[in-house]
Amino acid sequence: MNTNRIEAFSDGVFAIAITLLILEIKVPPSGSALKAELLSLWPSYLAYAISFIVIGAIWINHHAMFEHIVRADQNLLLLNTFHLMFVAFLPFPTAVLAQALHDGADEPLATSFYGGTLTVIGIFVTAMWRYAAHEHRLLSSHISQDEAKRNGRRFLVGPVCYGIATVIALVAPWFALMFYIALNVFFLWPRHTRHAGKNAT
Amino acid sequence: MNTNRIEAFSDGVFAIAITLLILEIKVPPSGSALKAELLSLWPSYLAYAISFIVIGAIWINHHAMFEHIVRADQNLLLLNTFHLMFVAFLPFPTAVLAQALHDGADEPLATSFYGGTLTVIGIFVTAMWRYAAHEHRLLSSHISQDEAKRNGRRFLVGPVCYGIATVIALVAPWFALMFYIALNVFFLWPRHTRHAGKNAT
Amino acid sequence: MNTNRIEAFSDGVFAIAITLLILEIKVPPSGSALKAELLSLWPSYLAYAISFIVIGAIWINHHAMFEHIVRADQNLLLLNTFHLMFVAFLPFPTAVLAQALHDGADEPLATSFYGGTLTVIGIFVTAMWRYAAHEHRLLSSHISQDEAKRNGRRFLVGPVCYGIATVIALVAPWFALMFYIALNVFFLWPRHTRHAGKNAT
Amino acid sequence: MNTNRIEAFSDGVFAIAITLLILEIKVPPSGSALKAELLSLWPSYLAYAISFIVIGAIWINHHAMFEHIVRADQNLLLLNTFHLMFVAFLPFPTAVLAQALHDGADEPLATSFYGGTLTVIGIFVTAMWRYAAHEHRLLSSHISQDEAKRNGRRFLVGPVCYGIATVIALVAPWFALMFYIALNVFFLWPRHTRHAGKNAT
Repeated sequence: MNTNRIEAFSDGVFAIAITLLILEIKVPPSGSALKAELLSLWPSYLAYAISFIVIGAIWINHHAMFEHIVRADQNLLLLNTFHLMFVAFLPFPTAVLAQALHDGADEPLATSFYGGTLTVIGIFVTAMWRYAAHEHRLLSSHISQDEAKRNGRRFLVGPVCYGIATVIALVAPWFALMFYIALNVFFLWPRHTRHAGKNAT
Repeated sequence: MNTNRIEAFSDGVFAIAITLLILEIKVPPSGSALKAELLSLWPSYLAYAISFIVIGAIWINHHAMFEHIVRADQNLLLLNTFHLMFVAFLPFPTAVLAQALHDGADEPLATSFYGGTLTVIGIFVTAMWRYAAHEHRLLSSHISQDEAKRNGRRFLVGPVCYGIATVIALVAPWFALMFYIALNVFFLWPRHTRHAGKNAT
Repeated sequence: MNTNRIEAFSDGVFAIAITLLILEIKVPPSGSALKAELLSLWPSYLAYAISFIVIGAIWINHHAMFEHIVRADQNLLLLNTFHLMFVAFLPFPTAVLAQALHDGADEPLATSFYGGTLTVIGIFVTAMWRYAAHEHRLLSSHISQDEAKRNGRRFLVGPVCYGIATVIALVAPWFALMFYIALNVFFLWPRHTRHAGKNAT
Repeated sequence: MNTNRIEAFSDGVFAIAITLLILEIKVPPSGSALKAELLSLWPSYLAYAISFIVIGAIWINHHAMFEHIVRADQNLLLLNTFHLMFVAFLPFPTAVLAQALHDGADEPLATSFYGGTLTVIGIFVTAMWRYAAHEHRLLSSHISQDEAKRNGRRFLVGPVCYGIATVIALVAPWFALMFYIALNVFFLWPRHTRHAGKNAT
């Protein structure tokens, strides 16, 4: 089984989840002072922006992974389904986070709940790669075993860092929030070395 | 008429239905005890997870079927449209089920309503295959009539089991719920024999 | 400009609009008698089913049309955008219709509002075909001018019939509703002659 | 990295954002005078139509741009993600605008908020083109440097005009609204010269 359909289906879920995020921002009730209300929604804008960038980074990551994974079996399909289950879940912790920041209450729990979701997403990314790379099971022959291992270590960065931030969130929610943002800036930052091999060909 | 467009359109509906499920989980009202509220939402998480896996399994199943169906006519299109109508309906019984479990009221009816929807989905899957396989009408020549019949029997497992569980749900909702989960684990479980023929080529 | 992207974008809008319909069916409030509530939602199920089939038929129709339209220009793009605007609008009159049937109030207006939307959709379908077929502007050379004219007449059936039903709805809403359903059964009914030319090649 | 996946993902987001717009139009409450209610929703219909056409024009524009951009790097991906973030945000200012027009209150702010979103979308469109066209970095060789510069100037029309309208909206909201519509009519208007080069080949 080739991977085109998994990629197309996953892209669909990513695109929908990323666009549904806006539905969690509710229009201020009629009759309220619009300016104050729009300004007071900054936690919703912040949560929207973070989740949008997170899903954007997951999407890019997913593609980078499936440039090397060229076959799929039932186990990979299953891991990918669980991965998508938590990506599609993200609008919910996003809304919980926005409300906690807005109310100035329960920020530690809400930030940790958000980080926990990101951690689980990251764990499934790592699991997919480990499964696919085990004995080069589902990988293209264009990637060496050494490179596959290096990638495996890089995919660990996400869940480990998110996991740490999830715990930190319980005592320092704003620090954890900054950490989530920094991580995604790191994931999305242009890396010249990554494409070096390809450009050479 | 070839089947590419039916598959692409169906994939779109599957991806959207699976991602819309999250919209049924409502953010706890502002001012409530967040921890208790998030924990009390376990029926929503459970219903979300079951429906996500159910639609995931339907998607995989649909693809497995359209590996063998290589032509489409108006009747198949019609059957597929009804199939999608009930798949896209699933977020509603999912939310009804989550609420019943949360309230601890009407679980038999809600579980049976949910199972009934799965049964109808399964009936349309079977109907599509029967129609396509009748006199090898719309099938590829790569599948033998015997294999087509075996597949037909396998596609019957879903609606028959779901149908039985729908009735059981009226007296033992939790047993039926476990049964829905077990069925999907069975559907998603790796089966080496299934791909044997392909690997041999 | 070729038509692949218009078709893919339109398919996306159709798939999303058809799947969003379910969001208009609200879960009965907690604490109510679930059985009675689920039964009392029959107008929502009916409206859901009709709109699902309507969008399904529009989708099939759109594809049938773009089998013959092989080029696109800015005007066609504009007409298609307006066509999609009213297709994506459909969940709103669907919900209005369901509520009117449920309340047993304002059925004539709600049914007419629904039919009016279908009429406008049909007008844009016809307009697209007329524009594309004028002097064979955007059509494939595989379709003759006579056949194009015959198709043009067939595309007129929709808006004319819907237009008449929209007026009838104001005095006999249930009759109009039956008429909408009958029309779509007619649109979706297998027609052997339609594919005769293709099968012959 | 080629641009197919960016285009497919962006198209997905455009299609979903454009279709979600309808969810912001709420069904009138049960028991109200339906005719008066449906008529009083004209600001929602207007805002829906404007946003639908705006996203339609953005989609067409995006495609026109990616006819010339043939390679993608991480920076372009990042700019595109921010572009999509504001496109997917549009249903929110659309709903705010509809409510302000409906209430006859806060129109200047709501119209300016709406225009501000369009301005930011336009800025990212321009930024993407500037980045891609800088030293012909990511462009096809089929477009000359002169033509790239002309396109760059044309892409500036959007954000500059929207920016001006955003300011005007604060004192003359209806004038700004008319200006948004006029701009999109201009963007969508058939231009024979644009495709001249292609038709010649």
